[in-house]
Amino acid sequence: GSADSPRTVTLIPGDGIGPEISNSVQKIFDAADVPINWESVDVTPVKSPDGKFRIPLRAIDSVTKNRIGLKGPLATPVGKGHQSLNLALRKQFNLFANVRPCKTIEGYPTPYTNVDLVTIRENTEGEYSGIEHTIVPGVVQSIKLITEHASLRVCEYAFLYAKQHKREKVTVVHKANIMRLSDGLFLKCAREVAEKYPEIKFEEMYLDTVCLKMVQDPTQFDCLVMPNLYGDILSDLCAGLIGGLGLTPSGNIGENGAAIFEAVHGTAPDIAGQDKANPTALLLSAVMMLKHLQMYDKAERIEKACFDTIKDGKVLTGDLGGKSKCSEYTSEICKRIKDSS
Amino acid sequence: GSADSPRTVTLIPGDGIGPEISNSVQKIFDAADVPINWESVDVTPVKSPDGKFRIPLRAIDSVTKNRIGLKGPLATPVGKGHQSLNLALRKQFNLFANVRPCKTIEGYPTPYTNVDLVTIRENTEGEYSGIEHTIVPGVVQSIKLITEHASLRVCEYAFLYAKQHKREKVTVVHKANIMRLSDGLFLKCAREVAEKYPEIKFEEMYLDTVCLKMVQDPTQFDCLVMPNLYGDILSDLCAGLIGGLGLTPSGNIGENGAAIFEAVHGTAPDIAGQDKANPTALLLSAVMMLKHLQMYDKAERIEKACFDTIKDGKVLTGDLGGKSKCSEYTSEICKRIKDSS
Ligand SMILES: CC(C)[C@H](C(=O)O)[C@@H](O)C(=O)O
Ligand SMILES: CC(C)[C@H](C(=O)O)[C@@H](O)C(=O)O
Repeated sequence: GSADSPRTVTLIPGDGIGPEISNSVQKIFDAADVPINWESVDVTPVKSPDGKFRIPLRAIDSVTKNRIGLKGPLATPVGKGHQSLNLALRKQFNLFANVRPCKTIEGYPTPYTNVDLVTIRENTEGEYSGIEHTIVPGVVQSIKLITEHASLRVCEYAFLYAKQHKREKVTVVHKANIMRLSDGLFLKCAREVAEKYPEIKFEEMYLDTVCLKMVQDPTQFDCLVMPNLYGDILSDLCAGLIGGLGLTPSGNIGENGAAIFEAVHGTAPDIAGQDKANPTALLLSAVMMLKHLQMYDKAERIEKACFDTIKDGKVLTGDLGGKSKCSEYTSEICKRIKDSS
Repeated sequence: GSADSPRTVTLIPGDGIGPEISNSVQKIFDAADVPINWESVDVTPVKSPDGKFRIPLRAIDSVTKNRIGLKGPLATPVGKGHQSLNLALRKQFNLFANVRPCKTIEGYPTPYTNVDLVTIRENTEGEYSGIEHTIVPGVVQSIKLITEHASLRVCEYAFLYAKQHKREKVTVVHKANIMRLSDGLFLKCAREVAEKYPEIKFEEMYLDTVCLKMVQDPTQFDCLVMPNLYGDILSDLCAGLIGGLGLTPSGNIGENGAAIFEAVHGTAPDIAGQDKANPTALLLSAVMMLKHLQMYDKAERIEKACFDTIKDGKVLTGDLGGKSKCSEYTSEICKRIKDSS
């Protein structure tokens, strides 16, 4: 659709603080007059006739139809019966790339400054294949599955992302010195794609070396692409560098523009319902979504209002070092948006 | 043997800067009158009749006999023919635990202070099993192998280490939410061992969470135990927090006290032979070795002389921010040792 026609977005408020922070995002989007209709759905698994738990059909239908979702945190199901709902959603909609930009937020105190990088993680296979066997009691194997198809797909996405976001370098992160075949295949795919983008610098680095260099000087990195587990680790590490999961957005990108944007922090049940939650990660994920939908003006206005509020430092939630409620922080951002128009 | 009877130690000087820094360690040990006889061996693989490359017998015999080795950096062999020599040594001598203490070095500038932790890594299996298959072209699986035997063994070692080194907490690092069977088994073993050490605090944490918390506040960690690849990553990350691989010692521990201590940095071919190398990581690995041999007095005198030299800051190699040669840095440490006796 064009940049300003209304768009229906599936909203998965999630558990714990999820509903509060989703509400906050909706208020902020209203203040910015974002042309979006929210379709709120519940994804709590329901027991199907075969005894297995499944995502409710209404939720699946909604995402399938809208192709865009915004998701709050989901509680990890207790017991071994069914897998993580986060993973189930990624699989269900074939969301093959997990994208997490990490940018220093001015005014928020951290030991690092000028961080501005993005991790792009293969999101469907690798160590997350779910294929495991107990060979004999006490001997277990887990299978890391790497395919050329999925590796090429995420590497293509990474270079396209780098190009579109005017980034200068893509680093492929691997352990092909150890997993010669599997990470070797991923590396080969990265090299193949890199050749098609001579204007983007291409770098290969071992995962351990990346971790070491990352904590020494994260400004040397730009775009990073890697297999599933490595992305799980590095994206959290990088989030730590700029203030934690409460401040970092995330997007799960699928085929033909389908995508679910999500806050990757927990459900914080201890403060749920008390108007204390910090909606920033979900808000910034929603901003990422707006950019994905090419609503750049709205995205930038909201982002600026959020960053200015943090920089100003007067109206912040507890975890950000302030004393304000979630609703007050939300209103402050809304006010700044209105003042800016 | 008793704490002061002479002991023969296999010395693997290694490649690149290896010989220089090994020489430096030998000089410093002489200055401290450490009762050690060095048996220097070359581990460059030789082609055996079956066409495969193998570690020379003399080297294997030496380590087998002495049960203690000190190792400089080894060049990664080019070509796919034979596996990493580092790994081959770990396998050959069944060195099941890789131990890397990370402690802030006073006077060396880093964004973190008061870091004092140790990573204990399973060193024989996991993602390093070497078992990989191409199922069909473009579809590869690598097998992560976790056994109860190896998991219990490294967890036992971690708790024993914690007890002997008066550490308060052991954190087991895992992704059992994803690899339920394999990491689940490792976790179960850690729990089992923890029960036998009620005096040591036990904590379970996901690898991604550990990475995030590590960069936010490493002082919350003490002893960490984990499967092979996670240890590879975390030990490098932690080294980054205190100044890099040029400053961090490492030990590979086997059955019945057998052990090889090593500098885990590279061979730095660009500066090899120019008297510019920094011997600190190898020296601190040698100090770890002395502690392992219960030569605590010698260990502490050498360590203090090294740390005092760094703190003083007047005679440092280039990578430590100084202008001195390796030999000058070495002499300064020797001088301080002699002055202290
Ligand atoms: C919740 C968990 C299954 C998930 C993962 O391991 O991928 C999380 O850590 C993430 O990064 O989204
Ligand atoms: C050299 C390499 C094979 C090795 C590893 O991956 O274990 C290194 O990174 C290490 O940590 O000792």
